[in-house]
Amino acid sequence: MQLRYFDNAASSWPKPTTVVEAMNEVVVKFAANPGRGSHQMAVQASRVLFQTRIELAKLFGIKDPNHISFCLNTTEALNLAIKGLLKENEHVICTSVEHNSVRRPLEYLKKKLNLNITYLKTNVLGQINLKDVERSIQSNTKLIICNHSSNLLGSILPIEQINKIAKEKGVITLVDGAQTAGLLPINVEEMGIDILAFPGHKGLLGPQGTGGIYIHPDIEVEPLIHGGTGSQSENIEQPIIRPDRYESGTQNTPGIAGLKEGVSYVLHESVEKIHSKEWKLTQRLMEGLLKIQTVKILGPKLGDNKTGITSFNIEGMEASSVAFSLDRNYNIAVRSGFHCSPLAHETVGTLELGAVRASVGYFTTVEEIDYLLEAVKEIVQKNKR
Amino acid sequence: MQLRYFDNAASSWPKPTTVVEAMNEVVVKFAANPGRGSHQMAVQASRVLFQTRIELAKLFGIKDPNHISFCLNTTEALNLAIKGLLKENEHVICTSVEHNSVRRPLEYLKKKLNLNITYLKTNVLGQINLKDVERSIQSNTKLIICNHSSNLLGSILPIEQINKIAKEKGVITLVDGAQTAGLLPINVEEMGIDILAFPGHKGLLGPQGTGGIYIHPDIEVEPLIHGGTGSQSENIEQPIIRPDRYESGTQNTPGIAGLKEGVSYVLHESVEKIHSKEWKLTQRLMEGLLKIQTVKILGPKLGDNKTGITSFNIEGMEASSVAFSLDRNYNIAVRSGFHCSPLAHETVGTLELGAVRASVGYFTTVEEIDYLLEAVKEIVQKNKR
Repeated sequence: MQLRYFDNAASSWPKPTTVVEAMNEVVVKFAANPGRGSHQMAVQASRVLFQTRIELAKLFGIKDPNHISFCLNTTEALNLAIKGLLKENEHVICTSVEHNSVRRPLEYLKKKLNLNITYLKTNVLGQINLKDVERSIQSNTKLIICNHSSNLLGSILPIEQINKIAKEKGVITLVDGAQTAGLLPINVEEMGIDILAFPGHKGLLGPQGTGGIYIHPDIEVEPLIHGGTGSQSENIEQPIIRPDRYESGTQNTPGIAGLKEGVSYVLHESVEKIHSKEWKLTQRLMEGLLKIQTVKILGPKLGDNKTGITSFNIEGMEASSVAFSLDRNYNIAVRSGFHCSPLAHETVGTLELGAVRASVGYFTTVEEIDYLLEAVKEIVQKNKR
Repeated sequence: MQLRYFDNAASSWPKPTTVVEAMNEVVVKFAANPGRGSHQMAVQASRVLFQTRIELAKLFGIKDPNHISFCLNTTEALNLAIKGLLKENEHVICTSVEHNSVRRPLEYLKKKLNLNITYLKTNVLGQINLKDVERSIQSNTKLIICNHSSNLLGSILPIEQINKIAKEKGVITLVDGAQTAGLLPINVEEMGIDILAFPGHKGLLGPQGTGGIYIHPDIEVEPLIHGGTGSQSENIEQPIIRPDRYESGTQNTPGIAGLKEGVSYVLHESVEKIHSKEWKLTQRLMEGLLKIQTVKILGPKLGDNKTGITSFNIEGMEASSVAFSLDRNYNIAVRSGFHCSPLAHETVGTLELGAVRASVGYFTTVEEIDYLLEAVKEIVQKNKR
């Protein structure tokens, strides 16, 4: 039975064929360390990293690609920013729809540094009140963290406005682009993003094990990892120069080569076209689901702007059993549970239930949407009996 | 002109064909997130990680594979151990042949936590005096860090004896296996290794972007990265359960699948056979180099046990120009400079000069060794004129 994949918010799939080709080329032809040694293979490896930075800079409107550093994943990028910025007794603001990759480092630092955290509660549509943002800023507020789109609800947060408020009060802005990089337009200058954490394996269509961080040239973040950078070896301190400051040890050259192809693909298709296609697919899915009486969709309403995420529950059924049935009986891959976002579930009142999350990608088809809808209908029917 | 690759101490090359095949399979067939969601692709991805852990546990004599966690590289593993263990005013011991991946995090913590660091000086052969180890342990010594083999000299350090001394005094032992994992026998139980940091892309023949850490079940290390683990999502704290505790966010599934094949290859060939072959190749290289009057080899003497690293200088020539000539005129890839180990250079008196490092791998041939020797002879001849 053909697989229908609706877990693109976790990792996008399939990938453009160029992604795997580029990875192969690196492993087979030049598996040497970028930035280490002057031989040709090492130079080729450095070039791969640099070219990927250039593509990412184009996508995100970043002036100097050297302010982008690669990370294992968005989680590492967020940890780097959070732990490298916040000091004792400082105040930090984030929303109630942040992922555990924001909440867990914050709660860890809260204990360790006596941090003061404000979780701004969104409404059930996943929307923030901008007045709350303004009101929450204190004299010791260092940082405001906001995801560009909730990984549970698919709601799009008004990053630009939030950041404007923050910047007026001298607060640093950190955006979690896990659900939007490559899927919604992002321009760090225009949107007032001081720090952007992004995954390589979701909207950017690269392989797992890739991601990165952009840090504004004027902002100093303490490195999370210290070590050999191939530069200034005799210096006992981590180099100040970027990207070396944040890229210690051997990087994931094959993965980053794959990421470059993913980003090139996105740039070629255009983010606008990708978002538009995903939005239409999502609308069709929502429309279909809303026709099924016992289905409840979380977050934005039909017609609202959102990303390709649709989380729902079937009345009287556990999310996990819906997902299990979709997987085993229909070969449909969705995700169930808490999606590492318990706060978001609390916000929309589904902390007990969890939810089924179906997330489309650029390669999802209308036929697949309809197949999923038929499957959900059947599951509901069977459950009634 | 055919490439002759002598930079295996940075990254091994070539890789077994199974490595790239396994990576392809993951990207093409099941690019879903391990441990997230219950659908079949996610389960397959989890299985890849688990199977790799099992292979690594076999290789290192680890009883429970769940005490192995994956990292981007050895540097991250070392940072995790160092930063997750050391507290204010504690004392730590390491050697003068440690890599910057140990020295830089230590020097960072020294400033931040008022750490007291003892760098045990090795002799010019790269050997440590065990009496110095004993003498250096103080009442507040928390940790002793030692690389199993120097990445500059190729000397093998007496890990087992050092760890025995440490354990008698209740000191935790951390071994940097960057140059020995897959290349020298390592058994964490027999060798008293509490924590082992290892790369995936060197002796284990996996791709870049992989590595890992083993932490003894009785030792608690604070995570370096907090975030979503797919487990206990509702818990605001990082789960205690391993490997989740140290694996936040999406892991490098394609890379880890490749690593599994690399480790399987090593297990099939046997570490003893690999070491024996590399030792013979290295002896041939050293013998040849010693016949060239102006060449000086650093570290262990001919006939001594060592890893596949041979660092040398040509009298009257800068290391970088030797490496440049080898690369451009002979298509031989070696590495020149400080190899991220300035302390080791200080120890052997080459901090001004740097060194040329030629490191063999399991796939290096006798013909390649002889070709390198001829090239060095020619360079020496040309330089005389």
